[in-house]
Amino acid sequence: MEFEESGIGEECGVFGCVAAGEWPTQLEVAQVLTLGLVALQHRGQESAGIVTSNGASPPTYTTLKGMGLVSTAFTPEALLKLRYGNLGISHTRYSTTGISELQNCQPFVVDTLHGRIAVAHNGELVNAQALRKKVMRHGVGLSTSSDSELITQLLALTPPIEERDGPDWVARIKNLMSETPTSYSLLMMHKDVIYAVRDPYGNRPLCIGRLVPISKLHRRCVKEDTEGWVVSSESCSFQSIGAKYYREVLPGEIVQISKHGVKSLSVVPRPEGDLPAFCIFEYVYFARPDSIFEGQMVYTVRQRCGRQLAIEAPTDADVVSTVPESATPAALGYAQQSGLPYIEVLCKNRYVGRTFIQPNTRLRQLGVAKKFGALTDNFAGKRIVLIDDSIVRGNTISPIIKLLKEAGATEVHIRVASPPLRFPCYMGINIPTKEELIANRPEFKDIAGYIGADSVHYLTVEGLVSAVQEGIASFQEDKMISSSSKSSNRVGHCTACLTGKYPVELEW
Amino acid sequence: MEFEESGIGEECGVFGCVAAGEWPTQLEVAQVLTLGLVALQHRGQESAGIVTSNGASPPTYTTLKGMGLVSTAFTPEALLKLRYGNLGISHTRYSTTGISELQNCQPFVVDTLHGRIAVAHNGELVNAQALRKKVMRHGVGLSTSSDSELITQLLALTPPIEERDGPDWVARIKNLMSETPTSYSLLMMHKDVIYAVRDPYGNRPLCIGRLVPISKLHRRCVKEDTEGWVVSSESCSFQSIGAKYYREVLPGEIVQISKHGVKSLSVVPRPEGDLPAFCIFEYVYFARPDSIFEGQMVYTVRQRCGRQLAIEAPTDADVVSTVPESATPAALGYAQQSGLPYIEVLCKNRYVGRTFIQPNTRLRQLGVAKKFGALTDNFAGKRIVLIDDSIVRGNTISPIIKLLKEAGATEVHIRVASPPLRFPCYMGINIPTKEELIANRPEFKDIAGYIGADSVHYLTVEGLVSAVQEGIASFQEDKMISSSSKSSNRVGHCTACLTGKYPVELEW
Amino acid sequence: MEFEESGIGEECGVFGCVAAGEWPTQLEVAQVLTLGLVALQHRGQESAGIVTSNGASPPTYTTLKGMGLVSTAFTPEALLKLRYGNLGISHTRYSTTGISELQNCQPFVVDTLHGRIAVAHNGELVNAQALRKKVMRHGVGLSTSSDSELITQLLALTPPIEERDGPDWVARIKNLMSETPTSYSLLMMHKDVIYAVRDPYGNRPLCIGRLVPISKLHRRCVKEDTEGWVVSSESCSFQSIGAKYYREVLPGEIVQISKHGVKSLSVVPRPEGDLPAFCIFEYVYFARPDSIFEGQMVYTVRQRCGRQLAIEAPTDADVVSTVPESATPAALGYAQQSGLPYIEVLCKNRYVGRTFIQPNTRLRQLGVAKKFGALTDNFAGKRIVLIDDSIVRGNTISPIIKLLKEAGATEVHIRVASPPLRFPCYMGINIPTKEELIANRPEFKDIAGYIGADSVHYLTVEGLVSAVQEGIASFQEDKMISSSSKSSNRVGHCTACLTGKYPVELEW
Amino acid sequence: MEFEESGIGEECGVFGCVAAGEWPTQLEVAQVLTLGLVALQHRGQESAGIVTSNGASPPTYTTLKGMGLVSTAFTPEALLKLRYGNLGISHTRYSTTGISELQNCQPFVVDTLHGRIAVAHNGELVNAQALRKKVMRHGVGLSTSSDSELITQLLALTPPIEERDGPDWVARIKNLMSETPTSYSLLMMHKDVIYAVRDPYGNRPLCIGRLVPISKLHRRCVKEDTEGWVVSSESCSFQSIGAKYYREVLPGEIVQISKHGVKSLSVVPRPEGDLPAFCIFEYVYFARPDSIFEGQMVYTVRQRCGRQLAIEAPTDADVVSTVPESATPAALGYAQQSGLPYIEVLCKNRYVGRTFIQPNTRLRQLGVAKKFGALTDNFAGKRIVLIDDSIVRGNTISPIIKLLKEAGATEVHIRVASPPLRFPCYMGINIPTKEELIANRPEFKDIAGYIGADSVHYLTVEGLVSAVQEGIASFQEDKMISSSSKSSNRVGHCTACLTGKYPVELEW
Repeated sequence: MEFEESGIGEECGVFGCVAAGEWPTQLEVAQVLTLGLVALQHRGQESAGIVTSNGASPPTYTTLKGMGLVSTAFTPEALLKLRYGNLGISHTRYSTTGISELQNCQPFVVDTLHGRIAVAHNGELVNAQALRKKVMRHGVGLSTSSDSELITQLLALTPPIEERDGPDWVARIKNLMSETPTSYSLLMMHKDVIYAVRDPYGNRPLCIGRLVPISKLHRRCVKEDTEGWVVSSESCSFQSIGAKYYREVLPGEIVQISKHGVKSLSVVPRPEGDLPAFCIFEYVYFARPDSIFEGQMVYTVRQRCGRQLAIEAPTDADVVSTVPESATPAALGYAQQSGLPYIEVLCKNRYVGRTFIQPNTRLRQLGVAKKFGALTDNFAGKRIVLIDDSIVRGNTISPIIKLLKEAGATEVHIRVASPPLRFPCYMGINIPTKEELIANRPEFKDIAGYIGADSVHYLTVEGLVSAVQEGIASFQEDKMISSSSKSSNRVGHCTACLTGKYPVELEW
Repeated sequence: MEFEESGIGEECGVFGCVAAGEWPTQLEVAQVLTLGLVALQHRGQESAGIVTSNGASPPTYTTLKGMGLVSTAFTPEALLKLRYGNLGISHTRYSTTGISELQNCQPFVVDTLHGRIAVAHNGELVNAQALRKKVMRHGVGLSTSSDSELITQLLALTPPIEERDGPDWVARIKNLMSETPTSYSLLMMHKDVIYAVRDPYGNRPLCIGRLVPISKLHRRCVKEDTEGWVVSSESCSFQSIGAKYYREVLPGEIVQISKHGVKSLSVVPRPEGDLPAFCIFEYVYFARPDSIFEGQMVYTVRQRCGRQLAIEAPTDADVVSTVPESATPAALGYAQQSGLPYIEVLCKNRYVGRTFIQPNTRLRQLGVAKKFGALTDNFAGKRIVLIDDSIVRGNTISPIIKLLKEAGATEVHIRVASPPLRFPCYMGINIPTKEELIANRPEFKDIAGYIGADSVHYLTVEGLVSAVQEGIASFQEDKMISSSSKSSNRVGHCTACLTGKYPVELEW
Repeated sequence: MEFEESGIGEECGVFGCVAAGEWPTQLEVAQVLTLGLVALQHRGQESAGIVTSNGASPPTYTTLKGMGLVSTAFTPEALLKLRYGNLGISHTRYSTTGISELQNCQPFVVDTLHGRIAVAHNGELVNAQALRKKVMRHGVGLSTSSDSELITQLLALTPPIEERDGPDWVARIKNLMSETPTSYSLLMMHKDVIYAVRDPYGNRPLCIGRLVPISKLHRRCVKEDTEGWVVSSESCSFQSIGAKYYREVLPGEIVQISKHGVKSLSVVPRPEGDLPAFCIFEYVYFARPDSIFEGQMVYTVRQRCGRQLAIEAPTDADVVSTVPESATPAALGYAQQSGLPYIEVLCKNRYVGRTFIQPNTRLRQLGVAKKFGALTDNFAGKRIVLIDDSIVRGNTISPIIKLLKEAGATEVHIRVASPPLRFPCYMGINIPTKEELIANRPEFKDIAGYIGADSVHYLTVEGLVSAVQEGIASFQEDKMISSSSKSSNRVGHCTACLTGKYPVELEW
Repeated sequence: MEFEESGIGEECGVFGCVAAGEWPTQLEVAQVLTLGLVALQHRGQESAGIVTSNGASPPTYTTLKGMGLVSTAFTPEALLKLRYGNLGISHTRYSTTGISELQNCQPFVVDTLHGRIAVAHNGELVNAQALRKKVMRHGVGLSTSSDSELITQLLALTPPIEERDGPDWVARIKNLMSETPTSYSLLMMHKDVIYAVRDPYGNRPLCIGRLVPISKLHRRCVKEDTEGWVVSSESCSFQSIGAKYYREVLPGEIVQISKHGVKSLSVVPRPEGDLPAFCIFEYVYFARPDSIFEGQMVYTVRQRCGRQLAIEAPTDADVVSTVPESATPAALGYAQQSGLPYIEVLCKNRYVGRTFIQPNTRLRQLGVAKKFGALTDNFAGKRIVLIDDSIVRGNTISPIIKLLKEAGATEVHIRVASPPLRFPCYMGINIPTKEELIANRPEFKDIAGYIGADSVHYLTVEGLVSAVQEGIASFQEDKMISSSSKSSNRVGHCTACLTGKYPVELEW
């Protein structure tokens, strides 16, 4: 909801599950896929899709797709169709292109010379247009504008020569990686295997979890306890299905997940000298606070951003508060660092989001304020430091400030727990055009005056990066993978939307 | 959502709007009715209804009803039907009877000898069965199990003799009040007038607001600025439509709202010696925290409950937290009083609510925990005081405690910001049967052991009542009304569900 | 479909079923009610409703209602709800009032002092307005504009004094009959009994059938073979559920149907000298051709009308044909009598009915002709006698004549198998206003010229009446009923829409 | 409906429209496409799709697809999306594969190197499996099981070398024709042109019509009167949109339709010696009776089949009748030839089709008979010759015979107006497996006994072929096309399902 208002949007969430041991097992794979997807719903609300496979030779695939939230898209009756699946992948989509149709809904399923494959994808190919042309020049018609269809056709096309003894999917995936450096975290299902792949820059997240008996969820488990494996854009989905966090898929890594377990097949390196480029906005904005990236909890990073902000921009005020609810960890961090008391000033109406309001009515003038009730008694006569996680266009914070002041706040100081957004993202985030971003507009010079605040301060890029990277120091997962891929673990993040420094050269 | 889980449910929300001045005006009455209703959505999600009148002679009424949330029930196309209304009433319903059908959806509209009337109602008639029988004995067939139909037929029946010069609705409403003492806050629309009525005990809330130009929303306004009048179960709906809080409808009061303004027609007294009996659980649980009852903000009362709880049940612990998000004000109050730091320990997945899970699967074993992600890093190795607003059956807090402990909390102490629920409510709240309430079960003796907590303490009834009534002292609205009704304002609350002391004798 | 075009519409179909013998039986009452209703679908396509009772003390009623065709209104899942019913009534509705809402959908179910009753009704009360006022004067609010609610409240009101030993429904129904002479065929269900009632004039049809084992459907059966009883607006529904035609309910008769069988409780007489007034348009237009009224098949009557028309209006032409498909029996009758060959000239597209066409497009100019394909080769160069069953507004036959002529017919002579419609019906048929009826317009003087035909002839009223009554001579069912009611069986029909002679004086 | 029962199904109907003259014109192309499709609804009820193009450079395509009948699939709101189209193609689908999903819905739209194309197709490629493999070997993934996607990818792939000056679609279509000989009638839209193509054997129908002002529909028109061009599977769609029949697309012909008019680009010949193979079952069963194939009306051919049947299988009986309503032309033909009177014996309930009946109930035992009412009085005591158009499994005619006999027919003689179905169709018709066809079962030896008839006779293959070809003698359209393609017009029909003689060798 906030995303819609602010105009920043994540593209997608992907999720996969494989039942461990001899099939069929007692694991309700379709239920796991659905509930795992629900936990990724914040990453996309436009459409949802699930494909399951029974894993047999030849396999039977079952596909379910629908528009809207998972709970809307899949009826209980429809979910029954999937019940014989032993593995499967699912996807929830946020449209960056504006073409909101069922046919763009993922996962994509196609028949290839080597059998049917299904592909689910989060990210955006930086060289999509060039690749589309290449594929069409080969004589392939493309039926959607989706990168996922493009990826699927590239996997079908690659390599041009036919494998003798069946498909060499690893070679095909490596070939895909050589065609396009970033940005993608993808799941590809073929018969009885899921390949989990992250681009060499690790731009989008992907991690693996282990399903164990609910009773053993928080105890030590042995290998025999494994009921299945899951793979997800974010670890927050593990809690809701009873899975234990296992590890991240590394940048450039190709992991094979089957009933026999998890196997790292390869880690494709980046060009010499390039650092990883995990999207820093996943920390700032997109991810659910209980997700774990690079060994640290997102909530903790946001809290550190708040602390850092209190150091960089202290305020002479009475109370600290938040624009509910994504900025709350930063607000608590700011309060802790500054010693100011933390209070709530706004109450949010969760139901207002989708109600139809006719354009040009008096109600529209209320703007975003109609979503909030002012908790007047908490702040009347006080000076508020109000923490927001980002200011994109500047038109949503303004009515909130007005609301607070008119309800009795004597001063409202805005502190933003991230740097100003200045540049477009070509790697999967839907950001308004450069012209629409408040940081690029003349009004930005007097941003406080423009939005009606008493003062405004943003976190610095350096402050953000240090708040993020501070927690990664102790993170050493490289023992898990072959030494050849150690370079993947050096720290680096994509800050392109803040700095204009893109991790790869952009083709047009 | 929480309500569903806990098994406590409010019955309804009512909302009305009259455009001021000569009709037609520019006021989008249908939009105000819709958005006002959305702000009351927490009081009922089962169905929604709107009836508008053009106010002409004879009037044209337009009715719109639908199942589910307001946003689901009313399509933009359907709302257009209502566009010529100059006044109207709306209703959102939570089913207490379990009969979830469109025909039980309010407002009720019937043709009477004196024209068409529409009725919307929040509450539950304590003597409904006796009244049904009485009405049927008169020869009236009742087509639904709804109290609202019963009220409507009572209004049509009363008085038995025919008025000479058209209907005397005030006499009819007084007669209704003499037939049934409580519980109802009701809106009745006839042609160009809305009557807003609260039962003599004031058991359910009802308040009035004034629509002014958005630009004057937070300034002093004169009479000429009035664009319309609204009446609502809770004042939280005023913010979202740009209305200013005007005043509460008093217990026993009949208020007439028309294009000419707001007029108090009568205040029907209670039996000698009876105090008002406003539902104390509206403060504890049902109302939105930014609503105002009896001159005080609900949030503030909840915070006071938390403070009181810290006094009554201090804890040797490291941090204070909340079960998001209704217990947050109490948790902050507890933290302030106790001096312990306030942190967040749980992250809630808002989308999980309606997803279909097959019974008897492993996922069902996760229980309510699948709605929450543990913010592990915030509390690992710490002793937590966890504030909840109420414990009804005891089966929802238990998996949360388990989740926190397994994620690393060393101790979890439950502090409940309300007394134990022990008795059924016959006045509009859907409470589980006496046998299901944890406070009436043998397990309650060792409730901490039963739910897996290190200790459990409830707020006392006295503590709750004092936390509620402390803020009312300065509240003096009786200047507004005639002296004959002053008795209405003495302080008193219904605590029947906690104490078994019902405000009126119950008929069976 | 044709009905919509022509503007004549029947109001409703009613259907009931009671399982015979000790309950529960193997009879799928809900399925019988549904399929029986489907066979009456031509009588109403706006909404459908079913109410079943398990017949216990107290009974459990289950209600299912929906808009549109039976197949749309009732999903398989919804029908499962009804599965424990041992008896039930169902209803399909054609709106005469234009208020097309679920709440007007029948059967009506209300709680009365004597328990819950359900009522389904076909017809229209000639004195509805006076009765509504009477009921409202008694203090009853009416929530719909439906006659069925009015009937239900009259049954609840009557008699004003309370019966000592439970309800005397026969007395109440007789009282209803004394309040309103016509027009109604109604089914009232109370607990374990269905009362089937026809008004004293017998204006609307109602007949009884017996369910026997499918294997015995066309053989002699004994009492023990009875699996259940059904009651229906038309006997055409019996074939589709495997029931045998038993008999008609007589004008003024009250029949009780229970698991013990069928029992005639009373036959209320008409005022001295009044003849029955069964709607003659049921024969001409509404009924399905395989239905039986007054001992004769509707198809046969229509065929006789065609023969009579050939006698009254012979034509010098080459071929006889029909506007498919309701006029086909008359066309075959005309062909037989005249000796001219019968051919088909038009092919109908059954799917075109509900397709949305924007107003004012060229396609709209095609009018009804876009529903038909001309079977050119059959009639090019020939003179056609085209039989239609009625001409209401004159705007549908005109494009058909144009189509035929332009496709090569040298002459088109219209012969209408019924007399001109001239007067409104107040007894349940939706006829356009007097001004819209072509027979009342100036154009009627040169109707042939107006519609583009070479000649036009209507059947005379005398011709129609004799064609209808010719087949009744041998019909003697009065042995079945008490001698006191023999007068009910004298022959008489309502021809009010043709002659303006209404069977009862009309109140306004 | 009958199709479902009998198990024979057509695959599809295609329809296209191009507005003539300078764009935009006043022609409502989307409405024409919709209504044209409705007239082809008998060819497929599973899904419907429309794609329009504005014809600009680059063009904007708009796609609308939905499941079910046209009237269900396209809401008025959705149709508005298409309103700016100047040309377009539409498609209605009957699933032969049983995979009933939106993604299989046509037309198919893909981006190719030369721009976006849309393809709609009726037929079935005899060598689809081999072609799929070939396409996949080229590295193309296929996302559906539909032949249309295969055709589209073949058009994109062909030729492998890139055209210098833009696409040479004629060459690509010819290449497609060289890859697959039959069966397809297809429409391909590219920017501002529709290519209408029939396979060299002309297995599926396709014809062209001209839109003229409604007022000139049946008069002589000049070129200037042309408002647009339409192309359709059957000419029956022309009547409903106000188009004049222009001509058939010839076997092997590629026709270009643009705003400038209709142009024959090429006629691809068949292998030396091969005759055309237009599906003879289009005459017998699938086509609407008012459609014109090879210069003759389908109705007339069916009537001739009835006459021929009367010659081949005369009957000593009293009356001739039909199983409504597809067999009616044949029944009238039989009656005319035999001199026996034609009567109606069955009345069909059009609404019963989709009503849900639980399996294994007594109602299911009624079988197809529950769709029909017996017009008893017409035939009681008589010997009936009952004409049916085909008997596929033998399980639908049987209950009808039983019904008639039990209702009083003394004898029922079945005469089938087509030869027995014995072989599968691989060219687009959905026929039950060989084992299910009654003609291949042991029961066929005593078919009369098996179905309960007094005698059964089928039309001979020779009789059918002569009845079909008798009317073609005078048909000479070859003046219209270049002499090189004259061979296309020699008479020949595909009778494979009756004789096992397939027009091309089948690859497996």
